[in-house]
Amino acid sequence: MDRINMMNDYLQGCHPEILKKLSDTNMEATVGYGLDQYCASAIDKIRKACGREDIDVHFIVGGTQTNLISIAHILRPHQAAVSTVEGHIATHESGAVEGTGHKVITLPSHDGKLSAEEVDELFSAHFGSEISEHMPQPALVYISQPTEIGTLYTKKELSDLHEVCRKFDVPLYADGARLGYALGSESNDVTLKDMAELTDIFYIGGTKCGAMFGEALVITDDRFKKDFRYIYKQRGAMLAKGRLLGIQFDVLFTDDLYTRICQNAVRIASRIKNALKEKGIELYGNSTTNQLFFKMDGDLKTRIEERFILQFWDRDTDGRSVYRLCTSWATTEEQADLFISLL
Amino acid sequence: MDRINMMNDYLQGCHPEILKKLSDTNMEATVGYGLDQYCASAIDKIRKACGREDIDVHFIVGGTQTNLISIAHILRPHQAAVSTVEGHIATHESGAVEGTGHKVITLPSHDGKLSAEEVDELFSAHFGSEISEHMPQPALVYISQPTEIGTLYTKKELSDLHEVCRKFDVPLYADGARLGYALGSESNDVTLKDMAELTDIFYIGGTKCGAMFGEALVITDDRFKKDFRYIYKQRGAMLAKGRLLGIQFDVLFTDDLYTRICQNAVRIASRIKNALKEKGIELYGNSTTNQLFFKMDGDLKTRIEERFILQFWDRDTDGRSVYRLCTSWATTEEQADLFISLL
Amino acid sequence: MDRINMMNDYLQGCHPEILKKLSDTNMEATVGYGLDQYCASAIDKIRKACGREDIDVHFIVGGTQTNLISIAHILRPHQAAVSTVEGHIATHESGAVEGTGHKVITLPSHDGKLSAEEVDELFSAHFGSEISEHMPQPALVYISQPTEIGTLYTKKELSDLHEVCRKFDVPLYADGARLGYALGSESNDVTLKDMAELTDIFYIGGTKCGAMFGEALVITDDRFKKDFRYIYKQRGAMLAKGRLLGIQFDVLFTDDLYTRICQNAVRIASRIKNALKEKGIELYGNSTTNQLFFKMDGDLKTRIEERFILQFWDRDTDGRSVYRLCTSWATTEEQADLFISLL
Amino acid sequence: MDRINMMNDYLQGCHPEILKKLSDTNMEATVGYGLDQYCASAIDKIRKACGREDIDVHFIVGGTQTNLISIAHILRPHQAAVSTVEGHIATHESGAVEGTGHKVITLPSHDGKLSAEEVDELFSAHFGSEISEHMPQPALVYISQPTEIGTLYTKKELSDLHEVCRKFDVPLYADGARLGYALGSESNDVTLKDMAELTDIFYIGGTKCGAMFGEALVITDDRFKKDFRYIYKQRGAMLAKGRLLGIQFDVLFTDDLYTRICQNAVRIASRIKNALKEKGIELYGNSTTNQLFFKMDGDLKTRIEERFILQFWDRDTDGRSVYRLCTSWATTEEQADLFISLL
Repeated sequence: MDRINMMNDYLQGCHPEILKKLSDTNMEATVGYGLDQYCASAIDKIRKACGREDIDVHFIVGGTQTNLISIAHILRPHQAAVSTVEGHIATHESGAVEGTGHKVITLPSHDGKLSAEEVDELFSAHFGSEISEHMPQPALVYISQPTEIGTLYTKKELSDLHEVCRKFDVPLYADGARLGYALGSESNDVTLKDMAELTDIFYIGGTKCGAMFGEALVITDDRFKKDFRYIYKQRGAMLAKGRLLGIQFDVLFTDDLYTRICQNAVRIASRIKNALKEKGIELYGNSTTNQLFFKMDGDLKTRIEERFILQFWDRDTDGRSVYRLCTSWATTEEQADLFISLL
Repeated sequence: MDRINMMNDYLQGCHPEILKKLSDTNMEATVGYGLDQYCASAIDKIRKACGREDIDVHFIVGGTQTNLISIAHILRPHQAAVSTVEGHIATHESGAVEGTGHKVITLPSHDGKLSAEEVDELFSAHFGSEISEHMPQPALVYISQPTEIGTLYTKKELSDLHEVCRKFDVPLYADGARLGYALGSESNDVTLKDMAELTDIFYIGGTKCGAMFGEALVITDDRFKKDFRYIYKQRGAMLAKGRLLGIQFDVLFTDDLYTRICQNAVRIASRIKNALKEKGIELYGNSTTNQLFFKMDGDLKTRIEERFILQFWDRDTDGRSVYRLCTSWATTEEQADLFISLL
Repeated sequence: MDRINMMNDYLQGCHPEILKKLSDTNMEATVGYGLDQYCASAIDKIRKACGREDIDVHFIVGGTQTNLISIAHILRPHQAAVSTVEGHIATHESGAVEGTGHKVITLPSHDGKLSAEEVDELFSAHFGSEISEHMPQPALVYISQPTEIGTLYTKKELSDLHEVCRKFDVPLYADGARLGYALGSESNDVTLKDMAELTDIFYIGGTKCGAMFGEALVITDDRFKKDFRYIYKQRGAMLAKGRLLGIQFDVLFTDDLYTRICQNAVRIASRIKNALKEKGIELYGNSTTNQLFFKMDGDLKTRIEERFILQFWDRDTDGRSVYRLCTSWATTEEQADLFISLL
Repeated sequence: MDRINMMNDYLQGCHPEILKKLSDTNMEATVGYGLDQYCASAIDKIRKACGREDIDVHFIVGGTQTNLISIAHILRPHQAAVSTVEGHIATHESGAVEGTGHKVITLPSHDGKLSAEEVDELFSAHFGSEISEHMPQPALVYISQPTEIGTLYTKKELSDLHEVCRKFDVPLYADGARLGYALGSESNDVTLKDMAELTDIFYIGGTKCGAMFGEALVITDDRFKKDFRYIYKQRGAMLAKGRLLGIQFDVLFTDDLYTRICQNAVRIASRIKNALKEKGIELYGNSTTNQLFFKMDGDLKTRIEERFILQFWDRDTDGRSVYRLCTSWATTEEQADLFISLL
């Protein structure tokens, strides 16, 4: 009997409605490079969802690609991005940002998040230094929503960070690889409109949120709109058949599919989380989205791993193993039932 | 009535068999990053088709991406690629190679091709110079098969180039964005096995040859195998759902689908070419693959453009307009019949 | 008997007045990184000589370094520099500009110079293209004054180029490695003040014009002033003992030493040039500065090379050898007398 | 009355013998780019001092430049350098290494030094990871001798580090900006010959050790010798008048001038250190070279700063201010006497 794989949220292809639309449009001939009607329609819907007609939207295949291109697009050669020590660009992108010539300056992670105060101190210290030019200039703040460990910036936290960025005239960039799972979380008070107001550039992740592949980059700050098409062409990210991305986001932003399917995934994660709590299984971290972290060993581990594949995450300071379980748009209630029954 | 678009060969989605396999496997959960069974199977089939078990194969989403990553992977900082003045990396990739720090040195185009003799002269001049270090070091030869204008390197020409490269210990890289249409041309005498013998690294284009997207990079020279996975991860090209690429190439290399559908496209292009010749319409260049270049104006232009969309290519020295027509795996006999009837 | 070396203009150390000042100040302790009083004084004098108080001046050790840093400072990642095919950045800087990620687009050389009309055509074609983002964006015009082959832009030519640059909102950068020899030429009608008006950024070469080493970069356009100190620190060009550069330019710009010594060198070159003409020796090119190009073979070659070292430059289309003779601040009348006597 | 500046060790010009030789040779004409007889002579002397005829030596103007070029020369695009958190490349080089595309991975500083054990753990963890390609590959170990805070690697520590590097086939690079002050320290047991045996590439600092400017890069590992001249030309570091560097190192390595003058500086620093200890002034860190760190406030601070300029270094955890005093080849006994008399 095949085990159920819940290691991650990019294990299946895509939501059936997307596959259907890809099939329905397969033999249509459209112009290339994202200038087709499907991209136009998707952009229109994303603008409406963001409550702003003036934003630019570009579709890119993957997350690391979106991060490195956006950061290379914005920064001048001597400038650096600021991230928590756990940030994806600081840990699991093979030095992609450095590969474009820019340092990633790290600050402590507070439940996966940057502290606005510490960001303020970093910038104040840099620009207050008499030898500032001997150090890379911090010039972009990178966050992700939700964070690497599934936690969420509150609207208050995001506003504070935004304010610090404004103070130093530095853009705030949000990696939204799993943004759907933030928008779909009960604990969340940051809407898509807030994202568009409180960041200068962010992306709406598709790959992990129902799409076959693709991320929708949203540029809200006029200063960063110019020539983006050159930059992502130069980095090899402009898809000849750009309509593939447009079709997917058009479907995801029709009838709110994007939020609905992610909300469902988070709801299932919550059910499992409650079951874990009830059984006294120790949780790890404070994720309120589709990722669950908990400690597992002995009989429990044996029982679970007979039927499920989870990801070993880390060894905690107490020496116990932490595992991650991810729900996704593809997770079913039956899978959750089975998992809970094994606890 | 919609006009038939023959501007390019990446206008539709993908061959129906690929779409079917993507659908059939959609809800399967597989490991990410190209380590799944579909990639393994596709690699196995490509190795067999190339007649070598010792080659490395990596799947990458697009052509510009494949070119820039491969070149950045191979060259040291002071080294340059050599291409014809018409080469894709020298003209239509937004300075992607320069973006990785390397100059593209250009040589004349002879029917779209490099002359082995001129390549030899370039290298001899460089390494014979007393001030060679004041100039970028030519260190990789870039060609495409077929070329930008649809012509083909003969086996003799490719062998000569390969020999010059060996003489100077420099790798030969072949861009095969439309390789299927080379393999499917009657004029062609270079097999896939020859490609694997006579180049150090090349790619088998999927995007323009039946796949939804994707290129299969083949590394035949041991020296260039090491750490490629780091490089393409760092450049944002490692697809989380790598199996999407594996599935596509697995289908394309099953029962020789890749060559069959491209062969068909070239056959249709030949039919149209013969009709153009019969009608005394002036051809431009010597393409023997799926691209046709010819001069068109006056009534002919009006008649054709009422039913077809072609690409304006260039203005010839005689002042007349040159247009390009591309057939592809998606072109039908009926479309060709209609086109020919309008001549 | 040692032969007299006139191969180049960077063969000796520096003008004696500079050496004296370096000696006189040797044991003074000053702050580092160009923030000392000698740099301040030199900047002040250069501002006066340029007739503008609002320009920024930075001192950098060498020419290739100054070119690559300035261009990297100004361009965004997808942008390219435009140069003649003979331009130093296009030929003899080892791909330094490409090393910073930017293509060098080349245009024909007209007596070493760009044609304003051709530059206009290039920009018009690029920005008029529907697929402009598939090509590197031309975004900076690079010239040198004098050119690589000793010719000069007239004020009219420079103004025309400046106007085209304004039209497309693109900066004009002038490499002045031998600027002194332009300013010192009788044929010249472009003053230092004109340079400061008609370019956005240029440098006043020291290494070849009397200094031990060093170039003075002048930024006239406000948009390019910001954060330059970061950029040249990051590229390893900020000298700890920055005062060494300040001292040199302070001396060169005291009592007009810079122009005087270069003027003298050009005058001597003119004397020799006239002698060559009188003897019917065929000149090559139209240099009116400190470089002389002429054809030399047979007895003449033997006679000259017994006493002088010149640089073999090129083989002309008629098969004859072209040699270069450079005068400099270090050339004496006696050396010229001897040379002329050998003709 | 002028105060005596002891903030740093690059405040004066150069040792008088160097100045004399620069003057004596000033009007000689030599070939450029480091191919002259002075460079040859200096290389010869450095080879003898290192006890190896097979090493390559290149002269470069500054330290940041030497670091960034060497690291860019050695690493492939996906590779990273490893340094302590205090390392110069990690703190005060404006992101120069990242500017060449490479991450600097930091490990804890133990008295300014890397722990061989922690380096081993880092490499073991990386290469033992199943997802190693998602992280930058550590591929060069950067140390400085002496460290940023004046401490020294013992021969045992250097050998251990060297062994770990060998184990993972990774080069060990030593920044020797102040190497003279290490060689001149009584606590030191690492000779120049040891440096040449136990590192793969290192540099002998001139700028801070008696030269006007310049560093001598020594490449001991054959694998890193190839094409270095291209790399440093491309980065703008090849001096036209390369002989200026050759002359300086020729003088420094004649009659052991380099070690003698640095030894004297360290001896003076020791005298002052002993005086500080005797007076019960709290030292900070364990420097045994030419840098002294100590706490200073109240009357002492007033008294000292009336006659001396020192560098504010840091605020210690106890809230007290730490200052740095540097001796150098230019420091006199009289200056030390005066300083001690003020304690």
